[in-house]
Amino acid sequence: MNEIFPQGCAWIDNEYVELAEAKIPILDWGFLRSDATYDVVHVWQGRFFRLDKHIDRFFESTKKLRMPCQVSRDELKKILANCVVKGKLENAYVEMIQTRGMSPKFVRDPRLATPRVMAFAVPFGWILKQEDFEKGLDVLLTDIKRIPPSSVDPTIKNYHWMDLVTGMLDAYENGNDTAILVDENNNITEGPGFNLFCVNDTGIFTPDHGVLEGITRQSVFDLAKELNLPIVKKVITVEELQTANELFASSTAGGIMPITKVSGIQIGNGRVGDITRQLHKLYWKKHTDDKWSTSITDILSSY
Amino acid sequence: MNEIFPQGCAWIDNEYVELAEAKIPILDWGFLRSDATYDVVHVWQGRFFRLDKHIDRFFESTKKLRMPCQVSRDELKKILANCVVKGKLENAYVEMIQTRGMSPKFVRDPRLATPRVMAFAVPFGWILKQEDFEKGLDVLLTDIKRIPPSSVDPTIKNYHWMDLVTGMLDAYENGNDTAILVDENNNITEGPGFNLFCVNDTGIFTPDHGVLEGITRQSVFDLAKELNLPIVKKVITVEELQTANELFASSTAGGIMPITKVSGIQIGNGRVGDITRQLHKLYWKKHTDDKWSTSITDILSSY
Repeated sequence: MNEIFPQGCAWIDNEYVELAEAKIPILDWGFLRSDATYDVVHVWQGRFFRLDKHIDRFFESTKKLRMPCQVSRDELKKILANCVVKGKLENAYVEMIQTRGMSPKFVRDPRLATPRVMAFAVPFGWILKQEDFEKGLDVLLTDIKRIPPSSVDPTIKNYHWMDLVTGMLDAYENGNDTAILVDENNNITEGPGFNLFCVNDTGIFTPDHGVLEGITRQSVFDLAKELNLPIVKKVITVEELQTANELFASSTAGGIMPITKVSGIQIGNGRVGDITRQLHKLYWKKHTDDKWSTSITDILSSY
Repeated sequence: MNEIFPQGCAWIDNEYVELAEAKIPILDWGFLRSDATYDVVHVWQGRFFRLDKHIDRFFESTKKLRMPCQVSRDELKKILANCVVKGKLENAYVEMIQTRGMSPKFVRDPRLATPRVMAFAVPFGWILKQEDFEKGLDVLLTDIKRIPPSSVDPTIKNYHWMDLVTGMLDAYENGNDTAILVDENNNITEGPGFNLFCVNDTGIFTPDHGVLEGITRQSVFDLAKELNLPIVKKVITVEELQTANELFASSTAGGIMPITKVSGIQIGNGRVGDITRQLHKLYWKKHTDDKWSTSITDILSSY
């Protein structure tokens, strides 16, 4: 740990190392072609939240990239748990990654590469800090088009973030907290690392295409069901966003987070909405529920 | 040098190192968000080809990403030349890279990161091997859409290659040499690391949008001008591709390379075309021309 690296621990090339020591060769196609997939799960008070769902998606992504993960589910769980324990973290953001690896002698064929699996745990991160919950997020609505599903399958969680980073830079320079991108028809998609939900008099809505099928997005569906709040996946127009009663974001990095302004203009009455609040409360309650979370101690003591 | 790493040399964190030692931290945004740009120049018989044009584009790309390169042109030239010399290479593929670097303590804001510049030289690589020139390339025409310019600016050379890698995997599995991707209207764009040209009875054509503005593509324009062969940038349909008299690819990785088959079906008479041959000949002739190339010895002896 130093000025640059956060507290935490990484696992790479079959070893647990300090984050500053966790490095990949510059010739890894995961870097030179962004030929990689990843997933992020969080740990809250020593418990992983929906770990199996994240691992399911990770394994699916590696298969879709035609490099099925060779680490077993149980092994991977222990690796992730060890990263948290060795990093001395109580609340953590835990990332698992598989890159294509390197082809011998830099030949172009990806099939000749040996995939590389790695993981790391860092302190839990928030897109909206806990203490700013009542204030909510002010998101910049950009006209940047999210990379379409016809180019890169968004169900494979990937590092193709240049569009999202451009949005972030625009937002920060403009004084907003983060950004929202649109699709080729200028309808709403998602932001850097979060899905979006929109509440109006007729219901709760979330974009139906061109977005990552986030695990926290799925959690919102599941929580809403328990609360008898049906959510509909559909096209969401800019106008629907701007005239919503409530907006909220969902992400592993912070859970369910109110959006109270779009490009500086107040949404609804400008305060955290009732539905956002209900979902947020139930979301955090599930963090101690055995059906939704798994203790690190249990993972490390199992065989 | 070993079984995996090619002969060569890298420069990273202000040091020249063996390729196997050239690594970046897994927390670098260049990896975790593919927030990076690069350029590739080649060296033939100890001379860089059009080095200033590659450096111009690299510097432009870093500016567009709002992280203008802090290494001067003269410094960068010496670094690239040293990578070739220390790697003991006569013919080389030389890559310069700038990543966003890391934000302290993993905060999300890219503006807080310190960019990282690096470079490496490996043996010259061919998309079409010299000895296979007369045979030409057999490219698979895919229906994969190249990431559109409205999402990622293709004039910033970038590592968003998942669409291209999917094309490569499809091509290799199908027995083809490489792949061609299309745009949102199913017109022709480019392939993994190369631009495309199409010759028919009315002229020579290359796609006008949604493609990397390759330096070798620019060289083809310049060479064609010398040969009084006008080239027109325009939309190229799948039909125009399939019914062309000649097709060729342009890339730093091999120069001007004939395409004699599309998805296994012969183009024209199936032999290398006359225009391809003329351009190819003039292209290699320019490699000893002082206006087109710079000797490594001259770079290293200048102040």
